[in-house]
Amino acid sequence: MRRTIFDEDHEAFRGTCTAFLDKHVRPNAEKHIEDKAFPREFWLEAGAQGLLGLEVPEEFGGAGAEDFRFNAVWAEELSKVNAALASCVGIHSDIVAPYLVDLCTQEQKERWLPGVASGETLLAIGMTEPGGGSDLAALKTTAVRDGDEWVINGSKTFITNGYSADLYVTAVRTSPEKGAKGITLFGIEADDAGFSRGRKLDKVGQTESDTAELFFEDVRLGDDRVIGEVDRGFIYMMERLPQERLTCAVSNVAHAKQILEETIQYAKEREAFKQPIGSFQHNKFLLAELVTQIEAAEAFVDAAVLAHSRGELTAIDAAKAKWWSSQAQNEVIDHCVQIHGGYGFMNEYRVGRAWRDARVSKIWAGSNEIMKELIGRDLGF
Amino acid sequence: MRRTIFDEDHEAFRGTCTAFLDKHVRPNAEKHIEDKAFPREFWLEAGAQGLLGLEVPEEFGGAGAEDFRFNAVWAEELSKVNAALASCVGIHSDIVAPYLVDLCTQEQKERWLPGVASGETLLAIGMTEPGGGSDLAALKTTAVRDGDEWVINGSKTFITNGYSADLYVTAVRTSPEKGAKGITLFGIEADDAGFSRGRKLDKVGQTESDTAELFFEDVRLGDDRVIGEVDRGFIYMMERLPQERLTCAVSNVAHAKQILEETIQYAKEREAFKQPIGSFQHNKFLLAELVTQIEAAEAFVDAAVLAHSRGELTAIDAAKAKWWSSQAQNEVIDHCVQIHGGYGFMNEYRVGRAWRDARVSKIWAGSNEIMKELIGRDLGF
Amino acid sequence: MRRTIFDEDHEAFRGTCTAFLDKHVRPNAEKHIEDKAFPREFWLEAGAQGLLGLEVPEEFGGAGAEDFRFNAVWAEELSKVNAALASCVGIHSDIVAPYLVDLCTQEQKERWLPGVASGETLLAIGMTEPGGGSDLAALKTTAVRDGDEWVINGSKTFITNGYSADLYVTAVRTSPEKGAKGITLFGIEADDAGFSRGRKLDKVGQTESDTAELFFEDVRLGDDRVIGEVDRGFIYMMERLPQERLTCAVSNVAHAKQILEETIQYAKEREAFKQPIGSFQHNKFLLAELVTQIEAAEAFVDAAVLAHSRGELTAIDAAKAKWWSSQAQNEVIDHCVQIHGGYGFMNEYRVGRAWRDARVSKIWAGSNEIMKELIGRDLGF
Amino acid sequence: MRRTIFDEDHEAFRGTCTAFLDKHVRPNAEKHIEDKAFPREFWLEAGAQGLLGLEVPEEFGGAGAEDFRFNAVWAEELSKVNAALASCVGIHSDIVAPYLVDLCTQEQKERWLPGVASGETLLAIGMTEPGGGSDLAALKTTAVRDGDEWVINGSKTFITNGYSADLYVTAVRTSPEKGAKGITLFGIEADDAGFSRGRKLDKVGQTESDTAELFFEDVRLGDDRVIGEVDRGFIYMMERLPQERLTCAVSNVAHAKQILEETIQYAKEREAFKQPIGSFQHNKFLLAELVTQIEAAEAFVDAAVLAHSRGELTAIDAAKAKWWSSQAQNEVIDHCVQIHGGYGFMNEYRVGRAWRDARVSKIWAGSNEIMKELIGRDLGF
Repeated sequence: MRRTIFDEDHEAFRGTCTAFLDKHVRPNAEKHIEDKAFPREFWLEAGAQGLLGLEVPEEFGGAGAEDFRFNAVWAEELSKVNAALASCVGIHSDIVAPYLVDLCTQEQKERWLPGVASGETLLAIGMTEPGGGSDLAALKTTAVRDGDEWVINGSKTFITNGYSADLYVTAVRTSPEKGAKGITLFGIEADDAGFSRGRKLDKVGQTESDTAELFFEDVRLGDDRVIGEVDRGFIYMMERLPQERLTCAVSNVAHAKQILEETIQYAKEREAFKQPIGSFQHNKFLLAELVTQIEAAEAFVDAAVLAHSRGELTAIDAAKAKWWSSQAQNEVIDHCVQIHGGYGFMNEYRVGRAWRDARVSKIWAGSNEIMKELIGRDLGF
Repeated sequence: MRRTIFDEDHEAFRGTCTAFLDKHVRPNAEKHIEDKAFPREFWLEAGAQGLLGLEVPEEFGGAGAEDFRFNAVWAEELSKVNAALASCVGIHSDIVAPYLVDLCTQEQKERWLPGVASGETLLAIGMTEPGGGSDLAALKTTAVRDGDEWVINGSKTFITNGYSADLYVTAVRTSPEKGAKGITLFGIEADDAGFSRGRKLDKVGQTESDTAELFFEDVRLGDDRVIGEVDRGFIYMMERLPQERLTCAVSNVAHAKQILEETIQYAKEREAFKQPIGSFQHNKFLLAELVTQIEAAEAFVDAAVLAHSRGELTAIDAAKAKWWSSQAQNEVIDHCVQIHGGYGFMNEYRVGRAWRDARVSKIWAGSNEIMKELIGRDLGF
Repeated sequence: MRRTIFDEDHEAFRGTCTAFLDKHVRPNAEKHIEDKAFPREFWLEAGAQGLLGLEVPEEFGGAGAEDFRFNAVWAEELSKVNAALASCVGIHSDIVAPYLVDLCTQEQKERWLPGVASGETLLAIGMTEPGGGSDLAALKTTAVRDGDEWVINGSKTFITNGYSADLYVTAVRTSPEKGAKGITLFGIEADDAGFSRGRKLDKVGQTESDTAELFFEDVRLGDDRVIGEVDRGFIYMMERLPQERLTCAVSNVAHAKQILEETIQYAKEREAFKQPIGSFQHNKFLLAELVTQIEAAEAFVDAAVLAHSRGELTAIDAAKAKWWSSQAQNEVIDHCVQIHGGYGFMNEYRVGRAWRDARVSKIWAGSNEIMKELIGRDLGF
Repeated sequence: MRRTIFDEDHEAFRGTCTAFLDKHVRPNAEKHIEDKAFPREFWLEAGAQGLLGLEVPEEFGGAGAEDFRFNAVWAEELSKVNAALASCVGIHSDIVAPYLVDLCTQEQKERWLPGVASGETLLAIGMTEPGGGSDLAALKTTAVRDGDEWVINGSKTFITNGYSADLYVTAVRTSPEKGAKGITLFGIEADDAGFSRGRKLDKVGQTESDTAELFFEDVRLGDDRVIGEVDRGFIYMMERLPQERLTCAVSNVAHAKQILEETIQYAKEREAFKQPIGSFQHNKFLLAELVTQIEAAEAFVDAAVLAHSRGELTAIDAAKAKWWSSQAQNEVIDHCVQIHGGYGFMNEYRVGRAWRDARVSKIWAGSNEIMKELIGRDLGF
């Protein structure tokens, strides 16, 4: 079905996105895989095109857009290139930048936001800890007050953009006895004394993204690094979950849709037993199912995007969109691999890499199990 | 998520629907099961409330509504009562009436439409033949020209409303050599000589609906019974498929959603091992999954309803909505049975009956396999 | 694959079974559905053929067979006729008779076992209570000591053979404070004062079997009706679970296999679009999958049958065989319905009835959820 | 359930296998991944232990074992180390060696078999061609007769052991007009003039195995390199399919079973929200399901192994075991990844690598779709 959530402005913006990606990113896709990173030039060019600060106010060099549909368009186009690109940019723009825009002081904004918009200040978020998974209440990284300063110790893991970011919005326990109500967000900069990064993690997929561990050894920071109020970090994170989950959902669908379209094309061109493989009824029915599955997931996520652009999206509805879309994404792409036969198992084919890339979407941003737990609670259980 | 496709007028109409159902239908639900039919009083009362001729022009006693969303509201409310009710009314109002409204002559309209709107002329459609399934091109019922008349011989099966209808829009082969291009629609009335009905079929579910075989033995009809043009019946049927499939889709989702809501309530009230069964994590996750599945299907079907109310819905997109919703409906209700335990296997519980009722939605109105064949062709295979 | 668990003796016995069924049961299948019961003549004839007391010692008129493979052969052949037959006979012979054979006194055996073998004493087992499901520890039917007698009050539900049985092995709470360790088995006879049966339950499937509620109002019994030792009922039930679950598993597979074979035959004979429907690749692949699924389930259950005939089958392995086979049975038969198209939704076709019949196998004999709970515990969780 | 297909001799042999693997292979597992190959020392050591020539007659240095259960034991133990190991050794010993043992002349056997048993002559099989998939009848590599010689031109792809093998049993078209009946097997040696190997293919998984393309440019061979009779190659390949598929099936199950056992252990040790993650009911039920699924697949494959050791296994039954086991393997390991959370997406965890490794088992050795096509035909469609 024709999608109806985007208007002319959104589609014009889509043109800007695709032009940028065609010129600056697609030609370098192989190099990103080899380097296991997107280079800083990528970020600076994206910033120069106005693609990194959609939500950053104009006074700090951003676009000041308040309509999430622009974010969605950009996430879709990124996802068509590859999933790692969408996640690295999504972390920067859709997931971390809002903390700064919403919670920072004027001084903090002046310090950080212009670089966020320009690509000079790459963002990451430090939530997950080794062995901690989705259990934020068990956070072990601590900040202890010492005079006018906070002294931070601990570590984080699975941090997207972790190896190359400049600013880490980091969840830290400031009140040991207060569980989830004792967490504060700090803005930790890459050159802060006592801060270090581990090696790039060797991941099953999304090899272009740099994912790393972070270590904090007596990192001493002043109050000017506290983001928002002390001990309110958990609430801040909860408030931003709808957008985080929705960003994932948009990317999940767009990624799978792109791979499916390429697979349909492949099934038209590749022949076996003297006919296009897509014309075998098994494949024909399968592709019909997959197209339906993606379009149905898209309709669901589109409804969520509209709700969010109206300011109505709940964390629960975002959770539904997140897990459902990631499940669809993984199922669809797994079938796409199979349709490619032996070539689907070769990294030189996009479908094999996409299959590896997609796997994490059922795990991260709150695992699908956590999503179901939350939805179940919302039902009254 | 809050649904956004309906406005105040639609919701006001929903109130009319529910008031009627609460007063005239729900109190008689057990009786309908025992009788294996909805009585004529039901149809007359619905007609009196203006619920049977939504698309019938006002001059013939209908509402003249051109916005399918009113049909959708009515289909949803009927489905919440039970699936048989939705299918019997849907056949009458959403599936057969449009043939009359769109294709009939003024004389035919005057003859038939007032009764359609009032409930005095119950409608059915004669497509499927014994052994013929979804293969309309293989139609064996024939009309042979004899002087000024057509002489019709053959039979139909699986005809919803078949035992009690007054008017049957019937697909008949008029040009033997022309395959799908040799089919004509006739309006056959219940008291036409040579027409007879077989027994009510003993179905796995939807026992309230009367489904029957039809027999035509030298039924002689004049040209005034031809609906539309001779030999164009196949095209007429194809043109009306989007609405037929969409009506099914709307009902599928609303039916499953209702049963799921009742199951969630059951899971809160029923205890095992001293806790509500819905609070066991397995059930909690399962219910979270089912709620998501239904809401995702609803978003997809809602998008299709909107497209249809804009006049844009294609037969292919309707096919996607039909098979996807019926699959979701069946999966969801099967799990609802399981959550009810032994009670789910008892006919006195709605969930067991709903499970039986839902099974046919993957089979009829073009089986899901036919839907996938069509979607696959549309992809270019 | 050729099955290897049966030898010549078993296959000879299979011949006896099929001859009996062909002569005495299959010709009356429609009547059993109408009557919602198997008549007493059936039981007496089966008894006369030596088919009801396989495990009953020869001195009491049985076959004294200790090799469960004979039971398995009989269960398979019964299941091929229909699932209700297998469950009614299975309850009598495989599930309840062993309690009597293993636990009764000589006097009790003399009183009851000859009738068990002859079919004059039809057996049922009273475990499940209204609202109680699989939670045996919550049993509410009580026996209170009054002089030399026990006074039993309470009720049971979902009792297969409940409406027509002569002897009910019934689990009753004798020690209120001792949970699972306070349950005793009683042999309650149909004409015991204070015992009564409710109506036949109106079930979704297996309509041939009479399932009923049981009521106990001041049923006064002497110690001669206690089966085994007082307060050891729970252990006795646990000990017999492997055979109960295995009987279900054998029946589940044989039932689905029979329906699948009939469906394959149907797919060869029924044509659409001028070719046998089984030759469409979608159906061809689907049938290939279903055949594999059933053969794989059969291999698993066969291994369990062999283990049980060696006396090695654990309750956990039986639980695995039970849930896995019932899942396969339901999935396979659901697809068989779909292959039958509209005819699959008609009760006159076996496949539609089989589909309804099979649904309960995921629910009863310990629901599949209970099976998974037990297996999970066995893994150490 | 206790498996019953192996006796003491088999289990003693298992001890030999595990001792070898523990000493020579497991300590080098990381190095094999880095090298993307198993080194020649591995093959020589395995040969020295008598592990490479189970089916090679004793006169040529092998074990002369005719009981496939020894192969199965060895395949299981290899699979527990990793899937690539099982496939590389399986290709050599279970899949290619039988061609030599069964079809070669005495001279050919003397030339090749001692090296096969010792590990000096590593084997590969050249069937699949670029763009050719499972369609052997479309083979494009040709041998043209030129005097006393054959001149071979063409290429092969996806050849396991392709980069390092010494002898390639290669399917070549010798009679262009005769389709499947015009294919001959040749023994092509790595240093034959005109033979070359492409780069190691960059695969999604099984990175330890060297998979490569092969090129034949005017490779000139005498009749002494023809294996079996001219133009009978297709039949020879068909005859060996049961063992090839069964080897895959055995490995698929053993691989998944090992990863599942490690995952169960992980679920006991890893805590979240202060309890072992396996004790959450969702995970508990899931693990119960996976254990059942693997044991059921194992029972099916065990039955096939027994049938093959009796010489009864058909190509169709082997096809069933192959596709069913690969499906189970992939489903189980995918869930195991999820249970590992973020760690499941890290290559340093075995489960992530196993997930990538397993994917190809649904594709190779005749894709699962080809298996279903064959099974469907066998049903009569």
